[in-house]
Amino acid sequence: MKRVYNFSAGPSTLPESVLKQAQEDMISYKDAGMNVMEMSHRSPVYGEIIDTAKQDLIDLMEIPDNYEVLFLQGGASTQFAMIPMNLGVKGKAQYINTGAWTKKAIAEAKKLGMEVDVVATSEDTTFSYIPKITSEQVDVDSDYFYIASNNTIYGTSFVNLPDTKGVTLIADMSSDILSKVVNVSDYGIIFAGAQKNMGPAGVTVVIIRKDLIGNAGVTVPTMLNYETHSKAGSMFNTPPTYSIYVAGLVFKWLKEIGGLPAIQKINEDKAALLYDYMDTTEFYKTPVAKEDRSLMNITFLCSTSELDAAFIKGAAKKDMVNLKGHRSLGGMRASIYNAMPIEGVQALIDYMKEFEAANK
Amino acid sequence: MKRVYNFSAGPSTLPESVLKQAQEDMISYKDAGMNVMEMSHRSPVYGEIIDTAKQDLIDLMEIPDNYEVLFLQGGASTQFAMIPMNLGVKGKAQYINTGAWTKKAIAEAKKLGMEVDVVATSEDTTFSYIPKITSEQVDVDSDYFYIASNNTIYGTSFVNLPDTKGVTLIADMSSDILSKVVNVSDYGIIFAGAQKNMGPAGVTVVIIRKDLIGNAGVTVPTMLNYETHSKAGSMFNTPPTYSIYVAGLVFKWLKEIGGLPAIQKINEDKAALLYDYMDTTEFYKTPVAKEDRSLMNITFLCSTSELDAAFIKGAAKKDMVNLKGHRSLGGMRASIYNAMPIEGVQALIDYMKEFEAANK
Repeated sequence: MKRVYNFSAGPSTLPESVLKQAQEDMISYKDAGMNVMEMSHRSPVYGEIIDTAKQDLIDLMEIPDNYEVLFLQGGASTQFAMIPMNLGVKGKAQYINTGAWTKKAIAEAKKLGMEVDVVATSEDTTFSYIPKITSEQVDVDSDYFYIASNNTIYGTSFVNLPDTKGVTLIADMSSDILSKVVNVSDYGIIFAGAQKNMGPAGVTVVIIRKDLIGNAGVTVPTMLNYETHSKAGSMFNTPPTYSIYVAGLVFKWLKEIGGLPAIQKINEDKAALLYDYMDTTEFYKTPVAKEDRSLMNITFLCSTSELDAAFIKGAAKKDMVNLKGHRSLGGMRASIYNAMPIEGVQALIDYMKEFEAANK
Repeated sequence: MKRVYNFSAGPSTLPESVLKQAQEDMISYKDAGMNVMEMSHRSPVYGEIIDTAKQDLIDLMEIPDNYEVLFLQGGASTQFAMIPMNLGVKGKAQYINTGAWTKKAIAEAKKLGMEVDVVATSEDTTFSYIPKITSEQVDVDSDYFYIASNNTIYGTSFVNLPDTKGVTLIADMSSDILSKVVNVSDYGIIFAGAQKNMGPAGVTVVIIRKDLIGNAGVTVPTMLNYETHSKAGSMFNTPPTYSIYVAGLVFKWLKEIGGLPAIQKINEDKAALLYDYMDTTEFYKTPVAKEDRSLMNITFLCSTSELDAAFIKGAAKKDMVNLKGHRSLGGMRASIYNAMPIEGVQALIDYMKEFEAANK
């Protein structure tokens, strides 16, 4: 069956072996006589699926014992509210504004009554770089310090973390979780929607230091309180069972190929192929500061929007799809998450060369 | 491949034809070259999937134009908060307490500052019946009047709706949506988690009268405001794309077999087979008041818990699984949602007769 190279920013491509396993399990998961979607979330067979997924994630990221792993719903947008509602004890927080998603997170914290200090922003250049801050800019009296580790729309990424002088660091890792080795202990909360590097949309992974749980006010809705889900092992109500199952298959696939050190190397190699080629030509330009380049989302433009459109159209004819850039930037965006094979990147570069030769 | 008869209360059995279609689409949906899970939710191909699912649901339930259909996340438990947060303008609501889920809904409304009047409850008999109210009990000054139309744990169901004298009726239809014809105009909001009669866990359908949208306070989190999702056509952030796709396949299956009038007849026939048999024997007892019997969840007990355990064990040996009753009632529960074929019900009755003969 035909498969395309799918450069979608999210939901995005999954390993074909994962899809094949899901296909094999569709009519009956092992000898259960039913699909995972049909299983009671309280059944032993499903219990093993969710427990294994959780443990595999713990293994992959080397998550320490003083952290809780939660499988929630509602996407990053729900985290934008849950974070101030659960952590905003003093009512003050600092954010670095690196794009549309941090802007939404900032707006939500303000809406919920937080005093928000936007420490730095790169909005002046349509978020083409990651602002660097000095530790003097950190307000040690803040409840937390918030960043988005990778910015899907603009193709920027935090290569080094800001020094927050002990203030709890929160990271939206929706678009680069599991793409490289991270030190979980550097963060108070890591959260990510699954639909880029983990699996189907509909499950949000939250990795939270245990001391940050249990501080929500009494009027916080039950479902927006981390404590609810922590106490219930992500089973306060029916979790998104099938999405967790598919994410679990992705975790197994990652373990099999060597875990995060291995995938980091692969991702660095894939991104280097693209960036190195772009650095040799004037035909394609990437708007992103070189030191802040994302390994996951690579944005680039031709000299005119007509050329961009022709590029995207020609790529689709060669079964390379979803290369159109976000409307706020125009041009192209190649999202090359974990599951994008290096052959897909190579095919893209071959086409870029061909298109350049035909149009320069 | 072996399939069992799965009597799970939820997540629960799906039509095998739906699973086969999902299996066929797994490596490539039609000629897209990718699975539905891998599609951008903003892509035309996914747009057609969600639009078709929505229209099919509108067709099936004959949802009038003055209602909005939303595909949300967070399950019924999130609706317990969203309803008071969006509708609690005067801060007063009435609830009929018919089980564990209405208790949770009541607790959540109180937590969020609502003045809650529990008009009637059947808690005195472990929720074995639906309390009937008179219209004099309705406070016309309430923001809304709340019921759960079917009570999964106890096997009771509202056969007739209470007369709420024009007060907005809210119904948690998680366990009987699409099981029979309903008049949507009788309700202000109908909501349901998908995982019983619609599809995989992780998507919550909300059918809401349009005038009830847009009344949330400014401090209500964006994701808990119906207006957010209504304005964005359920695409404010990435929706649970795959769950919606599978629900869409279930809607198509329902249309093919004749829609709600046809499935209602099938469900009445299935339930009648079981209840009629139980009414002929003293060996099995159902704790539910005859006039309030659910068509979806049928609870019954033998004379001792040892017999119950033996019954459940013996059923599993015959590939009839998840018949154990909820811990609050004990005994057995056969959930016979839309996708349970009549052959499954017949097989259960054959086994019940056999078990009775061997043990009475």
